[in-house]
Amino acid sequence: MTSPHPLDETDTLASKKKAFSIPEGVIYLDGNSLGVLPKHVPDRIADVIGTEWGTSLIRAWNTHSWIDLPQRTGDRIGRLIGAPSGTVVACDSTSVNVFKVLSAALSLNPGRSIILSDSGNFPTDLYVASGLKDLLARGHELKIVAPEEVEASLDDQVAVMMLTQVDYRTGRVHDMDRLTRKAHETGAIAIWDLAHSAGAIEVDLEGANADFAIGCGYKYLNGGPGAPAFLYVAARHLDQVTSPLTGWMGHEAPFAFDLDYRPVSGINRMTVGTPAILALSSLHAALDVFEDVDMAAIRAKSVSLSELFISEVEARCPQLTLASPRNAHKRGSQVSFRFEEGYAVMQALIARGVIGDFRAPDVMRFGFTPLYLSHRDVVDAVTILEDILNSGSWDRPEFKTRAKVT
Amino acid sequence: MTSPHPLDETDTLASKKKAFSIPEGVIYLDGNSLGVLPKHVPDRIADVIGTEWGTSLIRAWNTHSWIDLPQRTGDRIGRLIGAPSGTVVACDSTSVNVFKVLSAALSLNPGRSIILSDSGNFPTDLYVASGLKDLLARGHELKIVAPEEVEASLDDQVAVMMLTQVDYRTGRVHDMDRLTRKAHETGAIAIWDLAHSAGAIEVDLEGANADFAIGCGYKYLNGGPGAPAFLYVAARHLDQVTSPLTGWMGHEAPFAFDLDYRPVSGINRMTVGTPAILALSSLHAALDVFEDVDMAAIRAKSVSLSELFISEVEARCPQLTLASPRNAHKRGSQVSFRFEEGYAVMQALIARGVIGDFRAPDVMRFGFTPLYLSHRDVVDAVTILEDILNSGSWDRPEFKTRAKVT
Repeated sequence: MTSPHPLDETDTLASKKKAFSIPEGVIYLDGNSLGVLPKHVPDRIADVIGTEWGTSLIRAWNTHSWIDLPQRTGDRIGRLIGAPSGTVVACDSTSVNVFKVLSAALSLNPGRSIILSDSGNFPTDLYVASGLKDLLARGHELKIVAPEEVEASLDDQVAVMMLTQVDYRTGRVHDMDRLTRKAHETGAIAIWDLAHSAGAIEVDLEGANADFAIGCGYKYLNGGPGAPAFLYVAARHLDQVTSPLTGWMGHEAPFAFDLDYRPVSGINRMTVGTPAILALSSLHAALDVFEDVDMAAIRAKSVSLSELFISEVEARCPQLTLASPRNAHKRGSQVSFRFEEGYAVMQALIARGVIGDFRAPDVMRFGFTPLYLSHRDVVDAVTILEDILNSGSWDRPEFKTRAKVT
Repeated sequence: MTSPHPLDETDTLASKKKAFSIPEGVIYLDGNSLGVLPKHVPDRIADVIGTEWGTSLIRAWNTHSWIDLPQRTGDRIGRLIGAPSGTVVACDSTSVNVFKVLSAALSLNPGRSIILSDSGNFPTDLYVASGLKDLLARGHELKIVAPEEVEASLDDQVAVMMLTQVDYRTGRVHDMDRLTRKAHETGAIAIWDLAHSAGAIEVDLEGANADFAIGCGYKYLNGGPGAPAFLYVAARHLDQVTSPLTGWMGHEAPFAFDLDYRPVSGINRMTVGTPAILALSSLHAALDVFEDVDMAAIRAKSVSLSELFISEVEARCPQLTLASPRNAHKRGSQVSFRFEEGYAVMQALIARGVIGDFRAPDVMRFGFTPLYLSHRDVVDAVTILEDILNSGSWDRPEFKTRAKVT
């Protein structure tokens, strides 16, 4: 497992792998769930803790610009998803941000009742939508259709179309341009969840004319476990919408301590409480690795890695069935295979250092992160997978005991 | 500024100061805004980043029990506020948690319309209440009275009484026992914001029969800038209420990825998105310093420090007017003085290493954190304050320029 794969010889991103702390003996195919630690982040956080918090203390809100960190981090993410400066902010969790943008979107379309989503959406988006609908108690309906039925389901009752661009199970990509255009033609507002898109595929929110977006900081953006999420509001809506979570950080003058809420102009009105400085600093620092690469190069390598993975698995592991779209243009940066005993096989893989994950009922999921994976890694991972399947070494009780988190 | 004060000689908490990183030349009287860094936290976070995230990666959700960290941290906080195990969880920001508990409280009292609060509440609580009321659009009224009028304002229309126990400006303490009892007698639900209470004064949520509470992780609990907040639900309500923010972490089976939301039993139903592991780990570790002390000892020293401060300031700085209650039992762990040019005086103090803060329009605020302040510190701080006032050295343009964060 040492000689480079021929495709690695011409890989312009190959040197990026050195920027990450990859544990010895691990081939990490789960960056779509928790990104790897960039090597410079520990020193940066040590400095935030030791110098900024430890020494500057409360003064750091001004002297280290903590107060602007949500927007500074948002702007760095914006560059990766086609969002202009001042339209993205990093804050809260993805779930909380779904609540904010869905509430804001519904307020722009008061005469309509349907929230349209699909069964490929990540469940938390659907849970939050259902909770908001129940809370509002204004007769909204959450309509969940199959992913391929979304377009035909857009009609003059749909207030908001809320979709996750890349399906968390299969990697299937929705056509953001087409569906947003269609949504607008029918008078609906379009919300895009970029949890499995940001940092993984090319996204152009402004070009697609998307209304709102949210996404995750700890997957392809490598911000660390439970990193703050992000939130985008199209510039044209910024002065029209408010957050349902009217916390002091969204106030026009938070340090005037007025009793009445007046939203600040701009994207900061979508923030709520005191920014999580340690977590935001990790995410902000992690984004350094994206500074000198463009998303087209990342996407090209992602396609190359995942195409190689599919061809190797199908040639050597016929027991598995591809669950992802075969067409690379319709697939994000992950590849999933179905296997009835997929849970146990995945645990056996993990025990041998090949880390992917499992999604019920039978999906083995493998993420391809172009910044720290090589084609050699892909081939080596399949060699281990093939061995596990052919030897039946997955068929042990310890691999079948379900962990609390899968 | 070196000889110990006589009161320090008998201080049983004096040795705790060694557990904190206090910058050279600083007397820190702002632990009520951002607590000081406990010395062991940098190593703990380095380990969370380097070992747990860096090496265990996605496996750490199970192997390092990340998934339980919100509740494990909540239980540690619970011990400080009289809340039994399983009733407190650390998550999100205080503002977001206000939204959750207020929504839950209103759902328990559907026939009533008034949310009662007071003008001494921290503004974000009022902003969030106002935003929730507008969002619900069910005729709720947010009634804001003077702090001393709360009790008389409790009537058969009040659905929820929502108060911050310790006034952020003056340190005035509400009588939690009495007001909660009175609220219950009139049929109202009681929510307590413990932002300036937790870790500072003795609180007995269960003894007071409080219904809900929220509070802050980065003040007296020293969790770090923007640390996660906490949330308490009385055991008797846990199965009756749900969160309006129905994210996957509150689901009965988050990793089943069902399309329908079913809240888990217990306090975790009030959680929303993926836990912020770096930030929670800092808060969890910071709570170590409370393990071997009890809140009665902390409170006793807090009273001793603040009584000394008041007597020294009144004796030596007659230009200032006490803004806090004179009776120590009606005051939290902070003392405020009014002075028209308080902003400039505070900047001059900070320039000389005495760090307090300022709250508009004219309040100079000084926090007394018994774990890392000595009586010597208090006397020395007043000596510098006296010198600044008598010399007029605060009267310079650079001390009058308002910073973004005050």
